[in-house]
Amino acid sequence: MSKIIFDSGISLDGYFAGNNRGPQNPMGGVSPFIHAWMFNEKAFWDHLGVAGNHQDGPDGKYIRETIERTGAYIMGKRMFEEGEAVWPNDLYKADVYVLTHEKRAPWVQEGSTTFYFINDGIESALEKAKTSAKGKDIRIQGGANTIQQFIHAGLIDEFFLHIAPVFLGTGIRLFEGINKDLYTLEIAEIIHSDLTTHVRYTCKKK
Amino acid sequence: MSKIIFDSGISLDGYFAGNNRGPQNPMGGVSPFIHAWMFNEKAFWDHLGVAGNHQDGPDGKYIRETIERTGAYIMGKRMFEEGEAVWPNDLYKADVYVLTHEKRAPWVQEGSTTFYFINDGIESALEKAKTSAKGKDIRIQGGANTIQQFIHAGLIDEFFLHIAPVFLGTGIRLFEGINKDLYTLEIAEIIHSDLTTHVRYTCKKK
Repeated sequence: MSKIIFDSGISLDGYFAGNNRGPQNPMGGVSPFIHAWMFNEKAFWDHLGVAGNHQDGPDGKYIRETIERTGAYIMGKRMFEEGEAVWPNDLYKADVYVLTHEKRAPWVQEGSTTFYFINDGIESALEKAKTSAKGKDIRIQGGANTIQQFIHAGLIDEFFLHIAPVFLGTGIRLFEGINKDLYTLEIAEIIHSDLTTHVRYTCKKK
Repeated sequence: MSKIIFDSGISLDGYFAGNNRGPQNPMGGVSPFIHAWMFNEKAFWDHLGVAGNHQDGPDGKYIRETIERTGAYIMGKRMFEEGEAVWPNDLYKADVYVLTHEKRAPWVQEGSTTFYFINDGIESALEKAKTSAKGKDIRIQGGANTIQQFIHAGLIDEFFLHIAPVFLGTGIRLFEGINKDLYTLEIAEIIHSDLTTHVRYTCKKK
């Protein structure tokens, strides 16, 4: 059965994105700080189809595993609008459900990525994503507000954090106003790396 | 040479303490959630001089190491006032410098704990703590605001976080408004434990 997961990089002070996000400034410019570990790995560039001289380090395993287990994605409209401007074609290689008020026909990309625009909320997106995922997992890609909506709906089964050893000082936090009474969390796995700290949590609804 | 360190438990959403802190409600009541791993360990109760049937698990090592390396403590007035009401005698077994506007004679406890009340700022407290520490390290005990003052003064050499797998949703965050340009952080050590994630960072001033 599909699990509902997220897999997010954050700073040590908990920021998922910077201020003044937008298509001209994806993630508020913080990606090089939060995702340095990922940009360092061949697995990431392989997924993008970009050749290069990157290391194939132990962290690459987690990139490959998350991509492999994910059968469909759900994201918010702001993340999509930022990404639309810069993502390469066929980045996701799966169905991607975008939560938005905009009515728009599916955007079928060359390859296997299709963006669907969902106007009737997270449960509807989830139902469709489950069909797309065919038993693989559904990854709530972001932004922080979208992930929080799924947390608060009690829908998250597991999440993977990559905590970068940097302070950002300001921005949009991944965990803001989280209801403390929803889940019992367990630390499932923790992996040392020079550029980030990987921690995987499983969630049981209380 | 003495290092200046802090060693703090936080929730997964970054909280160091809850709201409505005070002598009647130390740490805003969050200690059982953030410090569960510590209360579980014989090393903690040994330090308090309390006999009991606690496990002597691998996490105890970090409690013993931090106590052993620390030669003097610095804390804020609010933390002191909360603790004064509930701490057992001779908890710190070292000199403790309390940052406060209150003028008060040193409180010499039976054993080896003495509280000194410092009215002229963190640099003054630090100078005195260095003399007390005799080459051991100086631990900035808390609260969050006091730790932030030392971070922003560029004085921290190393810190150890214990990230509990719980959400608190609200309270006082350890890292709030941190200046992102002060330090380069390195992940020095990371240790898996069922009840918390231990991560040690070293800091170099940029």
